[in-house]
Parts: sequence; C-alpha cells; structure tokens
Amino acid sequence: MKQVSIIGVGLIGGSFALDLKHFIPEVHITGIDQNETHLTEAISLGIVDQIGSMNSLKTADLVVLAIPVNAALKILPQVLNLISDQAVVIDMGSTKEAICKAVSTHPRRAQFLATHPIAGTEFSGPSAAINGLFKNKTNIICEVEKTLPNLGESVLSVFKTMGMHLRFMAAKDHDKHIAYVSHLSHISSFMLGKTVIEKEKNERNIFDMAGSGFESTVRLAKSSPDMWTPIFEQNKDNVIETLTEYIQNLNQFKAFMEKDDFEAVHNEMKNTNYIKQILKGIA
Amino acid sequence: MKQVSIIGVGLIGGSFALDLKHFIPEVHITGIDQNETHLTEAISLGIVDQIGSMNSLKTADLVVLAIPVNAALKILPQVLNLISDQAVVIDMGSTKEAICKAVSTHPRRAQFLATHPIAGTEFSGPSAAINGLFKNKTNIICEVEKTLPNLGESVLSVFKTMGMHLRFMAAKDHDKHIAYVSHLSHISSFMLGKTVIEKEKNERNIFDMAGSGFESTVRLAKSSPDMWTPIFEQNKDNVIETLTEYIQNLNQFKAFMEKDDFEAVHNEMKNTNYIKQILKGIA
Repeated sequence: MKQVSIIGVGLIGGSFALDLKHFIPEVHITGIDQNETHLTEAISLGIVDQIGSMNSLKTADLVVLAIPVNAALKILPQVLNLISDQAVVIDMGSTKEAICKAVSTHPRRAQFLATHPIAGTEFSGPSAAINGLFKNKTNIICEVEKTLPNLGESVLSVFKTMGMHLRFMAAKDHDKHIAYVSHLSHISSFMLGKTVIEKEKNERNIFDMAGSGFESTVRLAKSSPDMWTPIFEQNKDNVIETLTEYIQNLNQFKAFMEKDDFEAVHNEMKNTNYIKQILKGIA
Repeated sequence: MKQVSIIGVGLIGGSFALDLKHFIPEVHITGIDQNETHLTEAISLGIVDQIGSMNSLKTADLVVLAIPVNAALKILPQVLNLISDQAVVIDMGSTKEAICKAVSTHPRRAQFLATHPIAGTEFSGPSAAINGLFKNKTNIICEVEKTLPNLGESVLSVFKTMGMHLRFMAAKDHDKHIAYVSHLSHISSFMLGKTVIEKEKNERNIFDMAGSGFESTVRLAKSSPDMWTPIFEQNKDNVIETLTEYIQNLNQFKAFMEKDDFEAVHNEMKNTNYIKQILKGIA
C-alpha cells in the first residue's frame, strides 16, 4: 500500500492520512478535494504529499472516500471505473446501506470495502485532523464478504495497525443502530441549541449562566450541516423512528411533571442512570 | 470567617470546603450530612475537620447548605433559628425562587444569601469533590439587597477569592433562564439515554458503536435523581415551558424530514451553528 489517494482531506480523511504516514513511512498520499483552500492547507500541514485529480486514481493502491455521504454515493461508481484491477476503494461515511446498494451491481463491487470508523469531533476541515484519532475506536465493516479477500485483508490490517477495533455488520443493521447511538444525538443537540438560542438570543449575557453540562449536551450542534444533512436523508426512516421514540419519551416526562408525579420523574432518571455502566465501555 | 459548617459534604459542599481550606488556612470546617459514610469519607479526604450536628451551628460564622433543593427548603428556616446574630447562611441550589420565598418573612432573612455557583460534574458524593472547582465559574446571587451588607460582602469576597464571577439577578429571572441553559439539558440527556437503552438493551454490544458524540450528549444522564427531582419540582412551570418548546422544535425537524425538505433540515442546523459563538464564552 504505497500509493494512496484521499478524496476529501477534512477531519476524517486528514486524520487517516496522518496515521498512514505514521505507520507506513514510505506511503505517498495524493489529496483530492473540491475545496482548494483545504487542499493547500492539507499540503502545508503535511497531511498529503501532492494534489491529485480523478486521473491520478489510476495508479493508486488505495482510494479513500472521506466526503459527505451524498457525494460519496455519486462518486464511488466513477472511482471504481477508474482504478486499476489491484486497487481497493473504501468509504468512511456514517450511512452504509445506500452506498452498498449504489454499487451492488457494479462490475468492480469486489474492489470496494464499506467502513465506518466511529471517530471524529465536532470540527471539520484539514486543520481539524488529529494524529491517532482512530486509536481504540470501533470501525464497523459492512458486507465484508462482497470484497475480494486479499484486498479486504490489506485494508483491515491497516485499520488494526492504527489501533481500531473491527466490527462486522450488515449494512442495514449498521444504519438502524447508528441512528440511535449517533444520529439521534446530533438532532437532540441541534434542537437543544435551537431552543435555547430562540429564547435567549436577545439576552446574550444569559449564556454566562450556562455551565459545562450545557456545553456538553450542545457540543454536537457545532457539527457541519453539509455533512449531516445527507446522512439524515440517507438514513431517513431509521432516524425518524428514533426521533419518534425520543419525542414520546420527552412527552411522557413532561406529562409526569404536569401531573406532579415526581416519583415517576425520579424513576425515569434512576432507570436511565444505567447508562453509566454502558458508557464505561466507551473510550 | 473561621468557623464554617457545611451541610451536605458532597460534590459541591466538599469542593467548597477544599477551596475554603486552600484560601483560608486557619478555617475550621464542621461537616453535617445525613449520610454517615459520606461524613467518614469527608473526614478521611481532609474535606472537613470535624463531624458536627445542628447544635454546632450556633458557633458558626458561615453555614453552607449544599444539599438537594427540597431538603434545603425545609432546613433553612431551622438553620436561621439556630445561628448567632453575626452568622450568615448561604445555599447553593439550582433553584432560587422557592428558597427565597420560604424565608421571605423569616425574622433572620437578612442573614441569608441565595447563591447558585454554576459548577459541578455529573458525579456526586465527597469523593467527587475537586480543588478549584469554582475557579472562573459564574455564581448567580439572588436578592442580594435583602442580605445585611456586611454579611453579604464577607461571603461575596470569599467567592471572588475562589475565582468566581458574580452575577446579580432576581430569583424569578434566575429560575426562568436556568431552566433553558441547565435544567432542559438534563432532561434532553436523560431521555436520550432512555431512548437508546430501551431500544438497545438486549444488544449491549451495540454500544461499541457509540462514540464520543453520544457520550457527550448523554453525560448528564448519569446525574443524581435525588438531586434533580426536587429541582424539576421546584422549577416545574419554567421547565415545562422549555420542554414544550424543545419538543416543538424536534417535531418540526421530524416534519421536515418526513416531507423530504432537507433544505429546511440544513437551515435548521446552519442557524444553530451560531451556538459556536455562544459556547466560546463558556469556560
């Protein structure tokens, strides 16, 4: 794995490039991005060695798609058309069913591996790239059986070298579960931010009253709308299901309060404290 | 301020004691708590010098209430009855209207100062006490005009020494705004945790899929129900108002998704990104 092309040199693509350079010193990385400023930044930050074009994909051993999931959906078939017979393409998006479906009948389907490293921050762009971002993070691999074993293995071995824990899952299951443990969190956070801003926008100094608890729950509301809108679009049904259940739970909590049933309010919280046990497992 | 009694030697009371000892080395701190294990812990952690009783309040210069807000409401009038004419009592609860009202006609109202340091973590008990917890944190002081100036000043000067930024506010305004920037966050977090646990409880390994984003948004769901139930009870009307608006915003987001109006979904997030500017102001 010497020639790598990274399409999308932002937080995820950039961090992956930094780790590649760390673990495979002889690697040569070509960066492709619609955003020219990001490309220049990625060069000056030492994230990529060279600015590339779709044409440069022909000589790559590995092509990494680290772009919004709608863009990945469009570009993946073209990328597969361009690469050599020995190359492998991976994507790193937060939805897996749509992209697997988009190439299910592509003649080069076996040169693609669908991955989702559960890593990131609320920031974006090459300046947000971090060394070691993927260490001890879960990477969910979908439809591994559809990828040529030698190509799949070569990529998985890189992931393992970077310290990722691999999980294998059907694309459909990935999308269903990730709606709960990731996509819903983003909406709850965005709408919390919205609710508070709407109420308090004319009283900016009120935010002096906000502490680290508020900061923690609205952190994800800093996330990129360009990245998240297509995720919600592609995972629409699952996300709507989680939102419906979340709203039901909030309505029930509110109803307990309205009825002055604070024993029920206490129970709701006590039962949910179980999350402590669960969070212990998260790095 | 040499003799201090702290009622409730948990995270807040304990951290306040640690700071007192740091900034006023000659201080002698007596701890009072219903929980005997906490008292023993507080002694062995060096948080308090001695275990006290209600009787020991008679010789205190300062009495600090750092207990759940329902307990504070009950005990404050008794504490005021017991203290000397030179002593001052403060509470540190997350609701201010009820406690101010509870002592509004008490003959010793002027010996009480209502405070709310916006500081804490999701943990509790004396072992959660932290040195310097209050540094650079906002402390909201309510009805300062009802406290004897010399007593109020002596307490405020201690707060300032600990590095707190003081804000003065009517109790009613405090409760209204804090519902948005603190109480609502806790409910959104608890209900997020509940929604995910309900769905995924039989698939514990799914939580491998949860990343730091989920961890951040559900962090507050680890909070103590004993502390939070009376807060929601005392601030019921304001909290219900924030919950109603939050649920409306979530329903609208869901409706945009159902109508495939992803431009609106994008706009919702883009407008809320404004939270970045606001969060910059939070330590």
